Amino acid sequence: MQFHLDGFNAGDPRVQAPSESAKTNPQTDSLPEQVDVLIVGCGPAGLTLAAQLAAFPDIRTRIIEQKEGPLKLGQADGVACRTMEMFEAFGFSHRVMEEAYWVNEVTFWKPDTKRPEHIVRNGRVQDTEDGLSEFPHVILNQARVHDFYLEVMRNSANRLVPDYSRSVVGVDVDRMADDYPVTVHIARTDSEHQGQEEKVRARYVVGCDGARSAVRKSIGRELHGDSANQAWGVMDVLAVTDFPDIRLKAAIHSAAEGNVLIIPREGGYLVRLYVELDKLHENERIASRNITVDHLIAAAQRVLHPYTLDVKEVAWWSVYEIGQRISEHYDDVAGRADSTIPPRVFIAGDACHTHSPKAGQGMNFSMQDTFNLGWKLASVLRGQCAPELLHSYSAERQTVAQELIDFDRKWAKMFSDRPAEGGGEGGVDPKEFERYFVKQGRFTAGTETHYQPSQICGEATHQHLARGFTVGKRFHSAPVVRLADARGMHLGHVARADGRWRLYAFAGANDSAGQHSDIRKLCEFLSDAPDSPVRRFTPGGEDIDSVFDLRAVFQQSHRELALESMPALLMPRKGRYGLNDYEKVFCADLKSGQDIFDRRSIDRKRGCLVIVRPDQYVAQVLPLDDHQSLAEFFAAFMLNSQ
Amino acid sequence: MQFHLDGFNAGDPRVQAPSESAKTNPQTDSLPEQVDVLIVGCGPAGLTLAAQLAAFPDIRTRIIEQKEGPLKLGQADGVACRTMEMFEAFGFSHRVMEEAYWVNEVTFWKPDTKRPEHIVRNGRVQDTEDGLSEFPHVILNQARVHDFYLEVMRNSANRLVPDYSRSVVGVDVDRMADDYPVTVHIARTDSEHQGQEEKVRARYVVGCDGARSAVRKSIGRELHGDSANQAWGVMDVLAVTDFPDIRLKAAIHSAAEGNVLIIPREGGYLVRLYVELDKLHENERIASRNITVDHLIAAAQRVLHPYTLDVKEVAWWSVYEIGQRISEHYDDVAGRADSTIPPRVFIAGDACHTHSPKAGQGMNFSMQDTFNLGWKLASVLRGQCAPELLHSYSAERQTVAQELIDFDRKWAKMFSDRPAEGGGEGGVDPKEFERYFVKQGRFTAGTETHYQPSQICGEATHQHLARGFTVGKRFHSAPVVRLADARGMHLGHVARADGRWRLYAFAGANDSAGQHSDIRKLCEFLSDAPDSPVRRFTPGGEDIDSVFDLRAVFQQSHRELALESMPALLMPRKGRYGLNDYEKVFCADLKSGQDIFDRRSIDRKRGCLVIVRPDQYVAQVLPLDDHQSLAEFFAAFMLNSQ
Repeated sequence: MQFHLDGFNAGDPRVQAPSESAKTNPQTDSLPEQVDVLIVGCGPAGLTLAAQLAAFPDIRTRIIEQKEGPLKLGQADGVACRTMEMFEAFGFSHRVMEEAYWVNEVTFWKPDTKRPEHIVRNGRVQDTEDGLSEFPHVILNQARVHDFYLEVMRNSANRLVPDYSRSVVGVDVDRMADDYPVTVHIARTDSEHQGQEEKVRARYVVGCDGARSAVRKSIGRELHGDSANQAWGVMDVLAVTDFPDIRLKAAIHSAAEGNVLIIPREGGYLVRLYVELDKLHENERIASRNITVDHLIAAAQRVLHPYTLDVKEVAWWSVYEIGQRISEHYDDVAGRADSTIPPRVFIAGDACHTHSPKAGQGMNFSMQDTFNLGWKLASVLRGQCAPELLHSYSAERQTVAQELIDFDRKWAKMFSDRPAEGGGEGGVDPKEFERYFVKQGRFTAGTETHYQPSQICGEATHQHLARGFTVGKRFHSAPVVRLADARGMHLGHVARADGRWRLYAFAGANDSAGQHSDIRKLCEFLSDAPDSPVRRFTPGGEDIDSVFDLRAVFQQSHRELALESMPALLMPRKGRYGLNDYEKVFCADLKSGQDIFDRRSIDRKRGCLVIVRPDQYVAQVLPLDDHQSLAEFFAAFMLNSQ
Repeated sequence: MQFHLDGFNAGDPRVQAPSESAKTNPQTDSLPEQVDVLIVGCGPAGLTLAAQLAAFPDIRTRIIEQKEGPLKLGQADGVACRTMEMFEAFGFSHRVMEEAYWVNEVTFWKPDTKRPEHIVRNGRVQDTEDGLSEFPHVILNQARVHDFYLEVMRNSANRLVPDYSRSVVGVDVDRMADDYPVTVHIARTDSEHQGQEEKVRARYVVGCDGARSAVRKSIGRELHGDSANQAWGVMDVLAVTDFPDIRLKAAIHSAAEGNVLIIPREGGYLVRLYVELDKLHENERIASRNITVDHLIAAAQRVLHPYTLDVKEVAWWSVYEIGQRISEHYDDVAGRADSTIPPRVFIAGDACHTHSPKAGQGMNFSMQDTFNLGWKLASVLRGQCAPELLHSYSAERQTVAQELIDFDRKWAKMFSDRPAEGGGEGGVDPKEFERYFVKQGRFTAGTETHYQPSQICGEATHQHLARGFTVGKRFHSAPVVRLADARGMHLGHVARADGRWRLYAFAGANDSAGQHSDIRKLCEFLSDAPDSPVRRFTPGGEDIDSVFDLRAVFQQSHRELALESMPALLMPRKGRYGLNDYEKVFCADLKSGQDIFDRRSIDRKRGCLVIVRPDQYVAQVLPLDDHQSLAEFFAAFMLNSQ
C-alpha cells in the first residue's frame, strides 16, 4: 500500500481524503438530476462497478437498489481464484481469505457396488491445480462480499453509498441529446416515500438488476436459451452428521434417491447442500409449489444413506429451476442498425446471463463483467479514450459468457444424470464425471477467460517472448523481490483497481539498466519521444504514472543491482512534494526458487514488455525495443491529453 | 475463524454478539463505582490488556486515559515478529502486514577510508533469520496498532471503549477489604468536567501509565538505573534524497558528524531518522533545550554527506535522552514483607522499564507484559486459578526485562560510539557492530524471551521429545494440513487470545488414532479419568474445550487418515446445538516439504504432548502417555470447577 504521498495523514490509509464535492455537497437521500453513471442494482455486478468508479473523484456515480438495505443472507457463495485476484486489486482479498472456507479438495461419492442403497467415496481430487493462482478458491456469504465493496465505496473520496428502495420504471435514450442522453424514471418504494418518482439524467446507465432486469427490457434485449429443465433446492444448515466429508466439497450420486452437492461454508460449522429435486417423491415435486425445507432435508437424508444428517438450524434455503440463458448483446446498440453509435446503456451480470450454480460461476462472472466495463467507462468519461471503446464490453463479455453457458449446460446435465459405471444410456460414469471436473478446473477458477484480438487486445505475434503471459488472458502473477526494500511480494499485486495500465518490462540477460540497456532505452522512449504514450496520453499536471504504470523486473538478485543507477522513470517524482516512488523496480525471487522468468517462460535473452489492462488482462506482449508497436497500440484507441 | 456455532448470524463475524450487560447497561461516559479491573493508560500495554480482558464478557473492565482521545501520531514504530504472532491471536496480524513497512534487510554505513568525510556502505544483512517466525518484522505507526486494539475492544461482547481525559490522583489498597480492595481516585481533565473527581473500586488495578506512572508511585515502586547519558532526536519526514538505502533500515556512522539510524516507514514515502545529538554543534546541544527540527535535519544532512536530504514535510519529531531504567518489582507486594499476599496492583510497560528505541523493543516488550498478565488476571477472576498465580507476572516479566535492559545498554552504547576499524579506544569496529546486530537478531525479534521454571512453566525434563518447542519460550508455529478440509495452515494460528490453554498432541509413528494409539489413550484419559484436568477444571455447562483446547497432529498425509476414526474429544460437540468442531486434527504438511515433525525436531517414534499457555508460551513438553504428569501440572495451580 502506498500513502502519505501528498503529506502525512493520521488514521486508516484506506480511507481516502474526501473530495471537494463530498465535502461541500455530501450525498443526501435524494438522487441528483444529473450523474455521469447510474448503476441499477446492488448485486455483485453493480457493486463491483460502483467500487471501481468510486476510485475516480471526478466521475459522478450513483447506484440504486430495489431492496431497502444491504443484503444480509447470501445466495451465491463461491469465490473463484480469478475473483480473488480482482479482490486483491480492490484491497480486500485478505479479509475474504480470513473469513472464508477454502475449497482445497473435492470428493466424489457413488452407490456402493455391493450395496447400492449405500453411498461410498469413489474419488478425491485437489480442487485447484497447483500454481493456477496465488489465491485459493473460497466460499463466503455473498453478503460479506457486498459488505467489503460497500466499505471500499464508503472510503472513497466521493463517499459513495447506495440509494435503496428505488425501482426503475423506465429508461429512455435520446440520441439527439448533446449530453446526459439517458433518462431514468425511478419509483421510490419505501413507505416514507411511497408514490414519489425521481428522474435522473445520466451519461451512461448500467443495468445490474438481475435476471428480470428492467433496464434490459427497456433496451429491448431478451434472454435466450433453455428454459428450466432441472429443479434444485439449496439450503445452508447447521447440522450434526457422521458423513466424513462434511468439511470437503463433495459431489454425491446416490443409486435411486438423487444427487447432492455439499459445499462447506465459512466459520467451520455451516454447510450448504444442493439437493436435486427431480428425484423427490411425487408429493414433493417442485411443480406442486408446496415444497418446504423439510422436503429438502428428507431428500438429503435419503441421498446420504447410510450416513445420518440431523439438521439443527436452517440459515437460508431456496428452490430454483436451472436454466441457461443469455442475451445476445450487452448494450443498447450492438447488432443493430445503429451499432456504430457508442452505446449508452449496458447490462451486466444476471441481467444478461443466467445459469446453474453448479459451476460456482454466477457471482464470479457477474463481477468480471463490470470489472471489464468499469475502466472503459472511466477512460471515456475522463477523456482518455473515445466512446467507441465501449463497444468492446459487449463484444468481449458476451463471447466468454456464451462459453460459460455451454460449459455449464454440460456440467449441470452431468451432475443430474444418474451414475452408471461405464456410462450407458442416460447415465454418467462417475470416473468420467471426475475427469470432466478436473479438466474444467481452470474454467471454474475463472482463469480461462480469453479475450479475442481487438483494439485493446493485441495479436499474439510475440507470445513466444513470454508464454506464461497469454495475450487476452489475465496477468498471472508470480513472486518477485522489490529492489528498494528487498521485500518479497507478488508482482501482480501492484495492480490496484485504479483504471491505470500496467507496463511490465522484463529485462533481458545482464541488463542492469546501464548505458546500452533495453530497459533504459524503453524508459527514455517513454519519457522523451514525441510519440510516447506516456507523453501523449498523460494529462499535464498529473503524476507521470497516472495513466501508465511502468514496472521493471530484472533477472539479477536484488543485491546485484543498484537502485541509484535506475532510469528516472523507474523512480519517478510524484505528488505535491515531488517525492520519489521507489516501488517500480523488482528482481527475480531467486532465493525462493520461484524465478518469475522461469515460471512465466520469459525469453531470458531478450526480455519483453507485457502490457496489462486496468482489468488485469494481458493486452499485448512486445519486444522491449519495439517502441513503435508500443506507441501504435495505444494510439489506436487513446486520445491526446489536453 | 470459527463462528455461527450457536446459530447463523449475518454480518461481520469479528463483531461479537453483545453481552447482556452491554445490552441492558451500555457503557456511558461515567465510570462505575466498582469494576473487576481498572487499567490506567491507553498505550500499547494498556490496550493489549484491555483487548485481552474484553474477550471475557463476565469480567468488568474499564480503561482510562489522560489524553483526550486516541493517539494520532506514532512514537514507537517497530513491531517485532513475536509481536506479530500475538497480533495474529488478536486477529489483526494481516491488517498490520498490509499497511506496514517490512524490515527485510539492514545496511551498515561507515566513513570511506579514502575520503572520511564521505560515508560508504560497509555491510548488508538480512534483518530476521530465515524460519525465525512466520511473520515479518514490520514498522507501523503506533497509533494504528492502537486503532486495531480499539477495534477488537469495540467488537467485543462488552463493547469496551476507553474513558479519556482522566488522570489518576491516587491509588489505595485496603488489604482488609473483602472485595474490591483497591480504590482509585481519578480527576477528570476535559473542560466540560474539569474539577470533577471519580472514585472507582477495583479488584485489580494495572498501571500502564508510562515512565512517570502515577500508579507506580502510589505503590512505592521506583525506576532504577542509568540516568540519561545519550541524547537523540527522532523525526518522521517526507524527503527527497539520493541516499540509495532510504527504503532499507540503515545504520550510518559518519567520521565526525555523528550517527543516524534510518527506518523506512509505511506507505512507501515516509521515513524515520534517529539522529545522534551528542555530536551536534555546540549551540545545538540538547542541554540548551532550544533544539528545533531544523537542527535535526541539519545534523542528518551532515551525517549523510555526500548524499543530500531535502526534507519536504516533518510529520512528527521529538528529542529525548536515553536512559535504561527498571523497577525491581512489578506489583505491590513482591519483595516485601507481605510478599505472599496476592498482589492487587500491577505496573506494566514504560511504567516499569524504559530504554532506548534503538533495539525497537519498547512497544513490543510492553505489549508482552500485559499479554502475560491478562490471562492470569482472567483465570483468577473467573475462578480457574488461585490468586497466587498473579505473583508470576512480576517474577517472569521483570527478569526478562532486565535482560532487555542489559542488552539495550550495550547496543545503544555501540550505536553511539564512534566507528573505529579494529575497535580501539572508545570506538566500535563497524564489522563488530554488524556481528552484534546479527547475533542479537533473535533477541530483537522478541523470540528469545525465556521464562524460568515455575508452577506454570515446567522443567525441561522431556525437552528431547521436541527440541523445537523450548519449554519457557513461545510456541514456534509451523505449517500443517487440517484433516477435515485439507487446508494448509499454521498450527500456531489456532491460538486465539481467549485465555485458553492449548494441548498439542503430536502423534508417534504409525499412530492413526486406532485402538492402541497413544493419542486415543490421551483422549480417553482427558475425557474420562477423574484426575483429568479437562474433567476437573472445565466448568459444567461450558464447551468441553473452553479451558483446554486439545489439538492432535499426525505424521501421515491427510489422505491417509480417516476423520471418522478420530476419538470424540478430537471432534467435540459444542454450543447450543452440539455441533461437531472439525478443526482439532491436523497432519504434517508433506507436500510443502515443511513437515512440522522435522522442523521442530519432534521424536517421530514417541510423539509428545506440548502444553502451551494462553500467552503462547510453551509450559511443558511431556510424553504422550505421561498422563500423571499432565494431571499434576495443572493440579498445581488450577482450582476445581464449581
